[in-house]
Amino acid sequence: MISQTAEYALRAIVFLAGQEGMPCTTAFIAEATRTPAGYLAKVMQSLCRAGLIVSRRGLNGGFLLKKSPEELTILAIINAVDPIRRYPECPIGIPSHGRRLCPLHSRLDEAAAMVEQAFGQTTVAEMLTVAQKHKSACRFPGVRSAPS
Amino acid sequence: MISQTAEYALRAIVFLAGQEGMPCTTAFIAEATRTPAGYLAKVMQSLCRAGLIVSRRGLNGGFLLKKSPEELTILAIINAVDPIRRYPECPIGIPSHGRRLCPLHSRLDEAAAMVEQAFGQTTVAEMLTVAQKHKSACRFPGVRSAPS
Repeated sequence: MISQTAEYALRAIVFLAGQEGMPCTTAFIAEATRTPAGYLAKVMQSLCRAGLIVSRRGLNGGFLLKKSPEELTILAIINAVDPIRRYPECPIGIPSHGRRLCPLHSRLDEAAAMVEQAFGQTTVAEMLTVAQKHKSACRFPGVRSAPS
Repeated sequence: MISQTAEYALRAIVFLAGQEGMPCTTAFIAEATRTPAGYLAKVMQSLCRAGLIVSRRGLNGGFLLKKSPEELTILAIINAVDPIRRYPECPIGIPSHGRRLCPLHSRLDEAAAMVEQAFGQTTVAEMLTVAQKHKSACRFPGVRSAPS
């Protein structure tokens, strides 16, 4: 339902949010979230362009969250890399339809709106709060130490 | 939220359902639903393999629905060509997670389940019923005559 790209972006952001401000390299995040490093590098660029993360150069450099986990929603992350498609007007391009969608596209748009609402109400902080309650089931696999 | 492939499959099936048993060629459906014919041909093959439509050969041949619009759901069409992804177990492959999903994947799975439920309760017949009530906004653009 969401793309692989969006899923990798979510893994990376949730992981970063758990690092308490420590910059992390792509290789480090890729290992921890079990994501292909080359693919993840492109995803991280998209997240930078969207202003969700920043890249700090130099020794001990890496990526950092730009927003706090409390204000960052799942929806914002998905929409930064592979937006949920809505149907503001007839996608078939029938002039007489315009913004009056046919029943099929109305139903698809309703479902997309429902998912947008659910993801728009879920913050990254909530993902961490639940993770702390059930550590064994929710944490990313341990990584030995911060990258140097 | 659903792929372009799934959207084209839905257009084709809803169109076929409105033809009252008249076989339609790919070219005819592509014109009516404003879908690229080459792309649609592959989608129609997938729908055939999934048993949702059948192909009748010969003069006046074409595709026909195999199931009635009343028993065919939007979910069945989407799942025939590009299934909605569920998370029966940890997609990161963390052995200790197994079927106990982390909060992120739990949330993604909940949203997928919500969409599955909505689409599973919506039949192609409903798309037609609403279309007949609001003809001007819901019908595919007119095509001159059945293909020969």
